[in-house]
Amino acid sequence: MSRFKLTLEYDGTSFCGWQRQQGLPTVQGVLESAFADFLGEPLTVWGSGRTDTGVHAKGQVAHIEISKSYSSSDILGALNKRLRDKPISLLKVEEVSCDFHARFSAISRAYEYKIWNRRAQPALEKNRMWWVARDLCIEAMAEAANYLLGHHDFTSFRGSQCQALTPFKTLDELSIERQNDIVFINARARSFLHHQIRNIVGTLKRVGDGSWHPEKVREILEARNRNLAGPTAPPWGLYLTEIRYDEPHS
Amino acid sequence: MSRFKLTLEYDGTSFCGWQRQQGLPTVQGVLESAFADFLGEPLTVWGSGRTDTGVHAKGQVAHIEISKSYSSSDILGALNKRLRDKPISLLKVEEVSCDFHARFSAISRAYEYKIWNRRAQPALEKNRMWWVARDLCIEAMAEAANYLLGHHDFTSFRGSQCQALTPFKTLDELSIERQNDIVFINARARSFLHHQIRNIVGTLKRVGDGSWHPEKVREILEARNRNLAGPTAPPWGLYLTEIRYDEPHS
Repeated sequence: MSRFKLTLEYDGTSFCGWQRQQGLPTVQGVLESAFADFLGEPLTVWGSGRTDTGVHAKGQVAHIEISKSYSSSDILGALNKRLRDKPISLLKVEEVSCDFHARFSAISRAYEYKIWNRRAQPALEKNRMWWVARDLCIEAMAEAANYLLGHHDFTSFRGSQCQALTPFKTLDELSIERQNDIVFINARARSFLHHQIRNIVGTLKRVGDGSWHPEKVREILEARNRNLAGPTAPPWGLYLTEIRYDEPHS
Repeated sequence: MSRFKLTLEYDGTSFCGWQRQQGLPTVQGVLESAFADFLGEPLTVWGSGRTDTGVHAKGQVAHIEISKSYSSSDILGALNKRLRDKPISLLKVEEVSCDFHARFSAISRAYEYKIWNRRAQPALEKNRMWWVARDLCIEAMAEAANYLLGHHDFTSFRGSQCQALTPFKTLDELSIERQNDIVFINARARSFLHHQIRNIVGTLKRVGDGSWHPEKVREILEARNRNLAGPTAPPWGLYLTEIRYDEPHS
């Protein structure tokens, strides 16, 4: 058996998230169908983690195990040919050792959240960014973000469907940057709670637009109460950008 | 009567170009309907020039003349409200003097062409860039582009539907830049022939992928024969970015 690491880009708009679901369009479902068509037999595509409905990926990672002898290049070509009319693209295929697991070998996950911050609604970037018309102060957002860095109980930012065993996570990066009308929020951690980033973004937005003081975010964190934080930011601003692994598993 | 300059963004994918056409979705048609709904009377939206089917705009300019007394801010708000479900956004409204004309006062027009140059097809940027899988050498493309700068007879790059009186144009800028997998081609001139930029891009692409030597572009230009140049690059990579005017007409 040979194992391959896949790096994927997708537009989440038309998918009901990553995970295979009977009768619904999902990224995993489309990939598995494309592989079944290529290989003539079913196979499981193991993702590094799920993405929600509407969330995009520039660097999702998955792995597969196949018995036939194909090269990385064969797989890349065959899959992209079958994905041509789908908003999924296979960026890279690498043969890896059999101890590589897209989910369990991952040491960190990085996401980018994009806010289009201008008065006029987006025409070119619909479903690609969260449109916020009120002026955001990124200095205030960055000050608030600092309270969230490090190891904390993130109950206040945890989605109600979250299946994690504990609400403790370590946030290694949470940076805010503006390029013209676009505000980028970059987050990195070993792993995240369900909706953690979108709940953090919804909260930072309230700080940015002046509704809340930056210190309020510290209070929200310490209160461990989801009702105190801001609303969940929409999925279409969120991009899974990078999964890091310990070492090359080749 | 008051005259207003409008700056517009649109996604050209679902439009049959700029110009109003009975029964077809066009940018001008949608804008005129939105204004008619707002003002309760028909009005003409005068564009700086047409864009073709599928071509996008980040900075198209148009003007309107209205009799009722509305502020720029009123118009911006009222129009964007009516455009919310359309891929058109009004970025800016400025009151201008009555000698301002979006088309005839323009002193230059700038376009950007985006090529996504990587092996894997785009998932996130479908209809936003031209996907070219073969590696492009931008140094060769830049060398070829230099032959096209300045005042020339551009017959070899002129679309068959072109209505310009002469094939002479002055190309003030034609630059090639790469940012990771994206190749940007920026062009600026007082005005362009029909399909001129897309025909130039289709030709430069042949130089970039090694099919043609850069010098061949000089020969093509001098031959004044459309059959010698490359194919017309697809419209979805092209963005009208900026229309410049001589002075503030306020």
